[in-house]
Amino acid sequence: MSVGLSQERLDAKAKVTGRCRFTADLTLPGIRIAKYLHSTIAHGKVTSIDTSEALALPGVEGVFTFADIPKVPFATAGHAFNLDPAARDKEDRLLLTEHVRYHGDEIAVVVAVDGLTASKALKKIKVTYEEYPALLNHEQALDDTARELHDGSGNRVGEHSYQCGDVPAALASADAILKGQFQTQMVQHCHMENHVAWAYMDDTDHIVVMSSTQIPHICRRIVSQALDIPMSTVQVIKPAIGGGFGNKQDVVLEPMVAFLTKQLGGIPVMLELTREECLTSTRIRHPFRVNIECAVNNDGTLKALAMDVSSNTGGYASHGHSIAKAAGSKVVPLYPNAAISYQAITHYSNLPSAGAMRGYGSPQIVFAVESIMEEAARKLGMDSIDFRLKNVAQTGDTNPLTGKVIESAGIRECLHKGREQFLWDQKKQDHSRFNSACKTGNIRRGLGVACFSYGSGTYPASVEIAGARMILNQDGRVTVQIGATEIGQGSDTVIAQMAAEKLGIPVSAIRVVSTQDTDTTPFDPGSFASRQTYVVCQAVAEAGDLLRQRILEHASCMLEIAVDQLTVSEDAVIDTSDNVLLSLKDLALDAYYHKTRGQQLTAEVSRKVTTNAYSYGCTLVEVEIDIALCQLTILAIRNIHDSGKIINPDLAAGQVYGGVGMGISGALSEELLADPETGWIYNNNLLDYKIATMMDSPDISCDFVETHEPTAAFGNKSLGEPPLLSVAPAIRNAILDATGVAMNQLPMSPKALFTAFRAAELI
Amino acid sequence: MSVGLSQERLDAKAKVTGRCRFTADLTLPGIRIAKYLHSTIAHGKVTSIDTSEALALPGVEGVFTFADIPKVPFATAGHAFNLDPAARDKEDRLLLTEHVRYHGDEIAVVVAVDGLTASKALKKIKVTYEEYPALLNHEQALDDTARELHDGSGNRVGEHSYQCGDVPAALASADAILKGQFQTQMVQHCHMENHVAWAYMDDTDHIVVMSSTQIPHICRRIVSQALDIPMSTVQVIKPAIGGGFGNKQDVVLEPMVAFLTKQLGGIPVMLELTREECLTSTRIRHPFRVNIECAVNNDGTLKALAMDVSSNTGGYASHGHSIAKAAGSKVVPLYPNAAISYQAITHYSNLPSAGAMRGYGSPQIVFAVESIMEEAARKLGMDSIDFRLKNVAQTGDTNPLTGKVIESAGIRECLHKGREQFLWDQKKQDHSRFNSACKTGNIRRGLGVACFSYGSGTYPASVEIAGARMILNQDGRVTVQIGATEIGQGSDTVIAQMAAEKLGIPVSAIRVVSTQDTDTTPFDPGSFASRQTYVVCQAVAEAGDLLRQRILEHASCMLEIAVDQLTVSEDAVIDTSDNVLLSLKDLALDAYYHKTRGQQLTAEVSRKVTTNAYSYGCTLVEVEIDIALCQLTILAIRNIHDSGKIINPDLAAGQVYGGVGMGISGALSEELLADPETGWIYNNNLLDYKIATMMDSPDISCDFVETHEPTAAFGNKSLGEPPLLSVAPAIRNAILDATGVAMNQLPMSPKALFTAFRAAELI
Repeated sequence: MSVGLSQERLDAKAKVTGRCRFTADLTLPGIRIAKYLHSTIAHGKVTSIDTSEALALPGVEGVFTFADIPKVPFATAGHAFNLDPAARDKEDRLLLTEHVRYHGDEIAVVVAVDGLTASKALKKIKVTYEEYPALLNHEQALDDTARELHDGSGNRVGEHSYQCGDVPAALASADAILKGQFQTQMVQHCHMENHVAWAYMDDTDHIVVMSSTQIPHICRRIVSQALDIPMSTVQVIKPAIGGGFGNKQDVVLEPMVAFLTKQLGGIPVMLELTREECLTSTRIRHPFRVNIECAVNNDGTLKALAMDVSSNTGGYASHGHSIAKAAGSKVVPLYPNAAISYQAITHYSNLPSAGAMRGYGSPQIVFAVESIMEEAARKLGMDSIDFRLKNVAQTGDTNPLTGKVIESAGIRECLHKGREQFLWDQKKQDHSRFNSACKTGNIRRGLGVACFSYGSGTYPASVEIAGARMILNQDGRVTVQIGATEIGQGSDTVIAQMAAEKLGIPVSAIRVVSTQDTDTTPFDPGSFASRQTYVVCQAVAEAGDLLRQRILEHASCMLEIAVDQLTVSEDAVIDTSDNVLLSLKDLALDAYYHKTRGQQLTAEVSRKVTTNAYSYGCTLVEVEIDIALCQLTILAIRNIHDSGKIINPDLAAGQVYGGVGMGISGALSEELLADPETGWIYNNNLLDYKIATMMDSPDISCDFVETHEPTAAFGNKSLGEPPLLSVAPAIRNAILDATGVAMNQLPMSPKALFTAFRAAELI
Repeated sequence: MSVGLSQERLDAKAKVTGRCRFTADLTLPGIRIAKYLHSTIAHGKVTSIDTSEALALPGVEGVFTFADIPKVPFATAGHAFNLDPAARDKEDRLLLTEHVRYHGDEIAVVVAVDGLTASKALKKIKVTYEEYPALLNHEQALDDTARELHDGSGNRVGEHSYQCGDVPAALASADAILKGQFQTQMVQHCHMENHVAWAYMDDTDHIVVMSSTQIPHICRRIVSQALDIPMSTVQVIKPAIGGGFGNKQDVVLEPMVAFLTKQLGGIPVMLELTREECLTSTRIRHPFRVNIECAVNNDGTLKALAMDVSSNTGGYASHGHSIAKAAGSKVVPLYPNAAISYQAITHYSNLPSAGAMRGYGSPQIVFAVESIMEEAARKLGMDSIDFRLKNVAQTGDTNPLTGKVIESAGIRECLHKGREQFLWDQKKQDHSRFNSACKTGNIRRGLGVACFSYGSGTYPASVEIAGARMILNQDGRVTVQIGATEIGQGSDTVIAQMAAEKLGIPVSAIRVVSTQDTDTTPFDPGSFASRQTYVVCQAVAEAGDLLRQRILEHASCMLEIAVDQLTVSEDAVIDTSDNVLLSLKDLALDAYYHKTRGQQLTAEVSRKVTTNAYSYGCTLVEVEIDIALCQLTILAIRNIHDSGKIINPDLAAGQVYGGVGMGISGALSEELLADPETGWIYNNNLLDYKIATMMDSPDISCDFVETHEPTAAFGNKSLGEPPLLSVAPAIRNAILDATGVAMNQLPMSPKALFTAFRAAELI
């Protein structure tokens, strides 16, 4: 039994001792350093660029501008290739640009013997611009007279809509209609390890790229596309990586380092972004403006939800409209019995480019949906949990968007468990007393709840494929190679547990090859969409079964006992009476080294997954607000998750703590600020960009409702992104509960609270 | 058709442009440099060692002596593990030694921030020795009173004998008996890239070793044994390597770098030997003393050969007696119809340690056999080629040592072809005229011939196993991963040709992963015993068939045409009328990215080989000798090989040119010289160790007799080692032909010729 136990992370010791090596720890002797020249305006065109002084600086080996790069537009989104051309990502980028689309856009790059020289060279490049008005929001970007950021686009990246059920009829017949507009902000991933990649050539036509990427196999494809060279001539290697949260599901630096080494005779060239560059010139979360209507009956039935979304992707499409699309599809499985309509547009603007970020549109849409749900509950005079209990999905419901049955839905149990564990009803009474006892009304307490549903992978929007390879080592241990990428989330450990479970050996006997190398690693699109545990488990389980079978067949050959009389247990082959017959080590040595029988025992499975499964969960939060100080304190916060079978409870809890922490930070303080006139970014650093630290974080608690998802090898569902989805609306609802003030824009910072409290005449 | 064509080497451009990276080109930032302290005596014991001053030197991070190392004796020979304990290699080494066994033995090691500091530190280590008499030869080492180099060994490493047929009877009844004693010298491999390895830890218990090794998988096993850690905790990576010739079929540096990084908290540590260290402190070729008797009848029938061999392994066993054993077994397939007896002993001595070197004992034994054969031909008054034609093997003969039929033997055809191409009979007449026309007799010309047989791999002495993995890439190309190691011989190219042949695609569509990594590379013991083309071809052929089948199955699914109506040709799937139906690229994209069908198309085969096949060949040489100057000029030299089907004619010829060149150098000039009293090595550098350069090399020519070996997937047999085997005896026989002087000791240097000519009263 390995699955379901809190196995220590395989990489725990390597990471706490500092022995784990990341991309920048694995460079080559003589590596050169590249640095970008970023635009100092948000919108415009370079009218002149003079690199001669930079090139003349000793130690500078190359300066390249938009004039020097291949004219092959490419998309950077980390999606598996789509056979349908219409479903592919917008190819709207070149390696460098003459047309500046946001403050920080890349117009040139310098390569030098060291970073200091490269920085000096950047300062010697002389640039002049023709500046255009900055288009920052929906109205500016989509105005008929607006200048196109990308020719022929009309500044539109994509739009789509869906409708489940008869929304107009439901709106017309409902007892009550609630309306609201919700706006989310620009936030950034702030993974610990900044973007870094380097490349060199080990042949006249073969480029090796080492990168901190979530998506090595996709990265390879995009590098080959951007440089217009065959895919087999590019090799991408992903070592240990210090977080990504979706920002490394974009191909940001790899095409450039590949281009540079190709230009410079194959010498190794590294690009390592600073935190400042990461904050503005990688990717951010799409700000959403959501207009939403909610129709309810007096008995508490949710009749309809109608959403109208505008998503702002900034200067380049990146994941573009996929995010608004994905966001819309994930509401339905939560409230499958309501009529739901969704329409969305994604537009360009002169803001930093938005891409994938944990939740992939869901945090934005859940903020709107769970806020309006709260308004409805209050309108009806219902308890917030009761109202949701009446409307959320249950196992056996049909997802109207796919027509498929929801095989496991534990959201009701999550709400029940949360209510009980959180002492919801008790606290409600206590707060009522507390708030009325507080004579001035200055200190208030409130409760909030919010729910979410989320997928496990990208199917059917994208192909879902995973590969696993296992090798019985000479010492009886098993090496596992998977295409799935460990990016800090603990997937290697969970995969080792799955493999151990199927093989019948302890996790300590599994070695997971954590480095992915496109030359040798089984194919897998990478780490995103909370897909890995769900999608990869199928391949791992099958490979485990296959290798175990091969082990038993060799044992049968050695022992002359029928295969069905044998099994693997711990480090040995045993018989049906639990007698140890043969150690796996002796078996392995025989398989490798017997002169006539046996072979290296391996198993390899590549497998597509044509199902998806919905995870559910909710956040319950208790806040105390000092109205005069506009200070919010989270007294308690608890997430309850239905992620199916929990493979590793401690790691699962760790995911939740991290996700909730990120959710709190995004709800209360984070915001990348752009000048409303010029589009200049004000706070591209961690001093001015307010990310919550440990000091800002309350105690976070969590629990699980373990449903069994029948489409997964171990009954498991997604958990990577879900923990943050319902945090912001739960806090928003708790503020409403405490103060009566509805915060419909993120972040709900002290400044925003001040504005809102003043408008409400609380201060 | 790819097999049989002179495909350009896959690594040609990378190597000539310098883009190919070798072990020392792939280090990590901050790598530390280690250097050995070598003994200054050949035999003795360290009585004191003071490392305090070295340790105190700034920049020195560690000094370790024999007192600090694990007390786990290990063997360094690169053999696949043997399930039979009696057949395993002598475990007679520790990482460092207190008991000095040869001049250059390793007694301490220093690690410093750079090489200069390490060198300085070495000079600060104070050592005193108790010196023992040096035991340098058979008599000294095996004297009853001799001090044991290794306790309990009696200075014997191994002995064995075999007899095929009734040798005493044949000797008693033959018309003539020839006797001789032949002595070969110490020579060294002199591969271009010296021994180099480095290691670091990426976890608290996982060591990564990068090494210039012929045997990554074996190396891993030996490192784990020497450090007494599980095999799965060691990972060995072999990048491009600049030659080995068997010297890197020994595990020389890897256990030490693994030990050092483990001692020093996982920091990267490199050991890179100098040429001087390589020459004395890695491995050399075993000097053989061969006493041989040859019985013939007047009709030219070889009745018997009786060999008595003493092999000198120096201070440590390394491959030890395996070499004398292998050498003996390879004579029989050449003369399978003669009675043959062989007895051999391998002893220790206080000389540098001998190990595997191209030919693995055969160059020594062939020198003796083909010299005595020449004596016999002359005794009988027969032409040298005619005499051999009468006695060499032919297809269908039985190898009396194995009882197995020789499935292909083209040595007669080689001799016929050689005689014709070399104008042997014409030259013979010309020389007769030339030699008698030379009035003083000072300038003489002569012809020599010598034959050999050689195996293809190590079976049945060792297990023969190989693995191949193939992946259809997204661009329709195929990546091939093999355990077999490219060490400069061109095996990657030949394997690509084999894969292309089976897949039906061009070689340009194949990418061979040249780096072996024990974590991910299919198992294969490595590059030695001229095994790769023969042993690996079976796995490659099967994997190629399997992947082709999977490609066609996916095509069948896409096209809805039966598999047997389809085949692969060039870059596409075609039908039986040669219509192109589908490009492999489109097929691959569908397999990877279709949402419901397909998968990553791969094939993996691990396979044992339980046959062996004998290659044959001969050298024909024409020399001119200036007796007064003791100067020998090779006027022409030609090798004719039966290596079965030739996969790549140009690369095959390249192997022959290199092998013949090495053979000439070893025959005429190379000798590592030891002081006969002290065992000190005089000439551990390439100024004093006389290796032939291009200037010393005559034009070498070659041709092939392409037999078909039915046990090989492509009819192919070994060619790596064979080219040098018959060179020295052919030259020796030509000298005899020209001068009447029999040179029975190598090298046949001007100095040796002087001694012999003077003894023969020619000068």
